[in-house]
Amino acid sequence: MSTLKLDLENYKELLQQYIKTQDEQALYQAEQFSKHSMQQNISPEEIINVHIESLQEIYPEMPVYIQSSLDFLLETMISYGLAYQEYQALREKQL
Amino acid sequence: MSTLKLDLENYKELLQQYIKTQDEQALYQAEQFSKHSMQQNISPEEIINVHIESLQEIYPEMPVYIQSSLDFLLETMISYGLAYQEYQALREKQL
Repeated sequence: MSTLKLDLENYKELLQQYIKTQDEQALYQAEQFSKHSMQQNISPEEIINVHIESLQEIYPEMPVYIQSSLDFLLETMISYGLAYQEYQALREKQL
Repeated sequence: MSTLKLDLENYKELLQQYIKTQDEQALYQAEQFSKHSMQQNISPEEIINVHIESLQEIYPEMPVYIQSSLDFLLETMISYGLAYQEYQALREKQL
């Protein structure tokens, strides 16, 4: 639980930094964040969730349509999350 | 190419419908959309891309920070996209 919380804080900081600077280095951190998340067996829809929570914390007054659009996006990622879990199981079998 | 274009139009319509109605049925369409995309070997980052393009078309004046945040999210999905391709290869081997 504390690891996930840490990740949310981490993601939020990286996201804020990227929005502020539009810096390639901050974008590179996004890639590192997802690689690290994958090592911890975190599914793609959990990344979307962390993204939504971070945005809500940074911009509590963001437009309602953005919140709704992200809920919709989250729903599309659920099937990909299941495929990702299956992928992990297949890889474990191979090792 | 025409299939992908069709999917963008389709996604955009479903997204618009959900934003407008907040209806569970429209959310269910998101799930169906992603299942159909998976059958066509479409990666999760391509879904994020279609999401970004749809939002830009529906809300050309959306805040710049939203655009930036989505670029950041897209970057996190690239590693998941590679894992998804690997998953497809592993499954094909099994069949």
